[in-house]
Amino acid sequence: MKKGKISNAVIRRLPRYCRNLAALRREGVQRISSSALGQNMGLTASQIRQDLSCFGEFGQQGYGYNVESLYQELYEILYLHQKKEAVLIGAGNLGRALMQNFNFLDSGFHLAAAFDTDPERIGTQINGIPVLDAAGLTAYLEEHPASVAVLTLPARFAQETAEQLMEQGIRGIWNFTNYDLDVPEAHADVVVESLHFSDSLRVLSYLIDSPAKDV
Amino acid sequence: MKKGKISNAVIRRLPRYCRNLAALRREGVQRISSSALGQNMGLTASQIRQDLSCFGEFGQQGYGYNVESLYQELYEILYLHQKKEAVLIGAGNLGRALMQNFNFLDSGFHLAAAFDTDPERIGTQINGIPVLDAAGLTAYLEEHPASVAVLTLPARFAQETAEQLMEQGIRGIWNFTNYDLDVPEAHADVVVESLHFSDSLRVLSYLIDSPAKDV
Repeated sequence: MKKGKISNAVIRRLPRYCRNLAALRREGVQRISSSALGQNMGLTASQIRQDLSCFGEFGQQGYGYNVESLYQELYEILYLHQKKEAVLIGAGNLGRALMQNFNFLDSGFHLAAAFDTDPERIGTQINGIPVLDAAGLTAYLEEHPASVAVLTLPARFAQETAEQLMEQGIRGIWNFTNYDLDVPEAHADVVVESLHFSDSLRVLSYLIDSPAKDV
Repeated sequence: MKKGKISNAVIRRLPRYCRNLAALRREGVQRISSSALGQNMGLTASQIRQDLSCFGEFGQQGYGYNVESLYQELYEILYLHQKKEAVLIGAGNLGRALMQNFNFLDSGFHLAAAFDTDPERIGTQINGIPVLDAAGLTAYLEEHPASVAVLTLPARFAQETAEQLMEQGIRGIWNFTNYDLDVPEAHADVVVESLHFSDSLRVLSYLIDSPAKDV
């Protein structure tokens, strides 16, 4: 495996492969050809073969892919089997939505605790996850190191909080604040993964109004 | 403008251009070169020039881009100036988070109403947006046509609700359910834009654990 060579586009497709294979598993499908998988995913068969070849030898000429084993392989390639600790910063509506409805374990993480500054939220539990005083975040992380922080706090606190977390050894930030975080030189190995809701809605705005579809 | 030829990758970068230019405007920057803009966005100067050339002639040799006018152009290219009506289906935590904190107008939409089945939510207002009885959705849309529906309801209701909305002339679906919606043949022109939170977190799982960074 030459992981150093894997493009961002391929990496971003890996979870889509996982989702599609999970759906096939649920439907009881045991094997699938690269062209059928491609059709499900809006990719060509050769694109599929090329993507997967980055990670090893899967599938057989004339047989296709074994759904279960390819799913398991992708699960491991994405490190979903190694549950990493996560903390969530900001237990407002969005933070609570994630705590209540999002399956962190299924995406490789154990959400250990949430932090907030609101006295009405501090001390509560949501879906078994304690909401702790943000003033105690530093002390908490010293005792319970975490790999990833989920940022669901107001955008104006995002940069300062992110830098504090990086100082404490956080390796990844899942950023919901719609703020483009700067990663200081000293923490250049920290990965920021941002979900920009507005980018997504603006693409929709473009696609429904663009004359492109009529061409 | 040959919009028929614009790739998905370029379309998805448009909102990022918008965000970066908005930040430059806020900082009072009046012009920027393609290489400086590229550096902000992790793209090459020629990539930037190529992307923007899909939409017309912007920027001048030796001067770069006028930040304000390029921002305005992109705003119009994305149809953000034409406010379209939207409805939201499912006023749980995530739906409420969007109603309270997300700036729909800034992304080209006016969020007119939310719908839910929970008697405790029906009849309330969130940030001025009424939460109405989901049983009245069909009648509502007949009187108040909407372009886009935001799906923040449980995944098991996603497909059925989406099809009902398509029947009623919805042109785009902003899908938060983590369910891959099927678009029936009869509504092939409906655009589905999905935010798969799990895809994003799984990419983060890969990136923090992958040996690629050490290569």
